Amino acid sequence: MRLKNVKGAREIIENSSYVITDLRINYNELFKNDNPIRIEIGMGKGNFLIENAKQYPNINFIGIEKFDSVMVRAVEKLETLDLKNIKLIRMDAQNINEIFNRNIDILYLNFSDPWPKKRHHNRRLTSPVFLEKYENIFKNKKNIIIKTDNRKLFEYSLLSFINNGYKISNISLDLYKDDLSDNIPTEYETKFAANGAIIYMVEVIKEW
Amino acid sequence: MRLKNVKGAREIIENSSYVITDLRINYNELFKNDNPIRIEIGMGKGNFLIENAKQYPNINFIGIEKFDSVMVRAVEKLETLDLKNIKLIRMDAQNINEIFNRNIDILYLNFSDPWPKKRHHNRRLTSPVFLEKYENIFKNKKNIIIKTDNRKLFEYSLLSFINNGYKISNISLDLYKDDLSDNIPTEYETKFAANGAIIYMVEVIKEW
Repeated sequence: MRLKNVKGAREIIENSSYVITDLRINYNELFKNDNPIRIEIGMGKGNFLIENAKQYPNINFIGIEKFDSVMVRAVEKLETLDLKNIKLIRMDAQNINEIFNRNIDILYLNFSDPWPKKRHHNRRLTSPVFLEKYENIFKNKKNIIIKTDNRKLFEYSLLSFINNGYKISNISLDLYKDDLSDNIPTEYETKFAANGAIIYMVEVIKEW
Repeated sequence: MRLKNVKGAREIIENSSYVITDLRINYNELFKNDNPIRIEIGMGKGNFLIENAKQYPNINFIGIEKFDSVMVRAVEKLETLDLKNIKLIRMDAQNINEIFNRNIDILYLNFSDPWPKKRHHNRRLTSPVFLEKYENIFKNKKNIIIKTDNRKLFEYSLLSFINNGYKISNISLDLYKDDLSDNIPTEYETKFAANGAIIYMVEVIKEW
């Protein structure tokens, strides 16, 4: 993703009531209910998560993003809406295991950075290093759903999931030729699918 | 595959020294060595298996095919060659578990019939019904390699393998964009890849 420096982004983010800054919070108290919590790591400009929050008021959504310059776009969109079931955290996914502790139901990874160089593969959000970090964030079964247009990242992710004990519950190797009625696209996805890119999707599950 | 009735096919097949008719044979005695044995179910006109036999003289290959009209083409090709490490069997894969007993090293399934209708899915060569039949044919670890241009068959096969305890050791979701130096194509594959079809490949392994 091309990153622009957005003037005042940090201030807009820090002043938004949608943004969680105290990360030691009790998430049930935060949302004032015990509805399921789904998170997206790398939520970018937020279209996927905000549309989810609109469509599913009885599910709570938390978006994680490390770049101010894209996160501010999600904050700006949210400030025009009144959604009680979505919060954002500005942080590096490296520390995900310090934030959540058996309270997440689904983890979404959409169009994650492919880190194409072999020496950077451990930075991929589906690497064994990250799967280890996710081990204790899930409440019940571990449930991860990824979408990407990067074939090499997708192949790598399949191997990583399977070799770490996950089963496949749903897969599409060309999502835009399948039933899209439940699909909520990201900004990136809409653009690339329109250009004819193949979009891959897989949902994987690991029982405790 | 379009099947033509080939006059005299049955007779040509039955008279070939490449064809095994006594299926209760000891395969080590048949090949006069204890080299690894790899089989292909649905070998069609035989290009894949014959090229393998030429390139790997220290591996034995057995091709299985149920249709005379395509199998005769493989027999005709073989009759112009002098290969000691390839044999053919005319049979329905339904009975595979009656023929082999812990003597196979690798099973190849290339461009298998996709059986698109849901009520026919059990006929797919990667269905749980067939995986069960393969359980006792393998000598050491179970090792299956598939190639197909049929996305739905490939997605189904991945789920079937993973949910039956196989791990992925190698995968390509667009084989003709990857390193093809070791790839031996089938007749069908050469034609469809030339037309721009995506060819999928996966190798899966299950330890005893």
